[in-house]
Amino acid sequence: MHAGELAEPFPVVGLATDVLTAARTMGDRRLPGVIVCEEDGRPHTILPGSQVVRFMIPAYVQDDPTLARVYDESASEKLMTKLSKRTVRDLLPEPQDRDELPVVDQDATILEVAAVMARMRSPLVAVVEGGRVIGAVTVSRLFEALFPQQPDAS
Amino acid sequence: MHAGELAEPFPVVGLATDVLTAARTMGDRRLPGVIVCEEDGRPHTILPGSQVVRFMIPAYVQDDPTLARVYDESASEKLMTKLSKRTVRDLLPEPQDRDELPVVDQDATILEVAAVMARMRSPLVAVVEGGRVIGAVTVSRLFEALFPQQPDAS
Repeated sequence: MHAGELAEPFPVVGLATDVLTAARTMGDRRLPGVIVCEEDGRPHTILPGSQVVRFMIPAYVQDDPTLARVYDESASEKLMTKLSKRTVRDLLPEPQDRDELPVVDQDATILEVAAVMARMRSPLVAVVEGGRVIGAVTVSRLFEALFPQQPDAS
Repeated sequence: MHAGELAEPFPVVGLATDVLTAARTMGDRRLPGVIVCEEDGRPHTILPGSQVVRFMIPAYVQDDPTLARVYDESASEKLMTKLSKRTVRDLLPEPQDRDELPVVDQDATILEVAAVMARMRSPLVAVVEGGRVIGAVTVSRLFEALFPQQPDAS
């Protein structure tokens, strides 16, 4: 089985996409991150949901989460306004702090996918064909393919 | 909305669970990790799928993923044997290298959940009631609750 067969459709966003749209995409698709692509479809990096959360929550509240108890539900609207004004580009770590992008060609073997995932400690590997992202392999998809349940397992 | 309402059922494994079962649980439930509990149900830590993949793939192959091209599909059976012989306890990082466990009480506010997630850079926060894990809030569930799609959005 090759990466192209393993890959599942995965939402991509652009560097100019607003952060609220990126967060809603993760919420809607129940995914822990999105792939960020260049305008020509080449993969740029991954934006993890936790990076968005770090942008949302002020540092002094991160240092003492009990401070978040004073927020009321209207905080959601304020956060939406904050996120809609910033782009994905604004949130990405500086290039020197950014992880090497986990990416494989569509003809990579399943174990090559696993090796890249292990090397980068990533729960996700982007799959490209002709340089453009065609989907991604998640760690759970990898396990599902490598270790199918026995037919008699409950 | 409180953590107890946000929490979704989340698979837990024990320290003595074999790694193959843990990996299959992630594959079957399509989750990037599982919560590891003590025997009495108290949360111990999180086992990310990427940690299992790092255990699966020898270091020299991680250093040069193209070496994985020589593996054939029978590698899957060898990996299953390898993983079935080790327990979750064997794979966990040493305590000093282990992340503080992201956990909140069931009465934490949604923003307290976000603050803990941000602080720990975790895509997941375990929710406890009376010290026992009742489920987890993922980053995508958090975004879904905080930033609902507008009714007219496509």
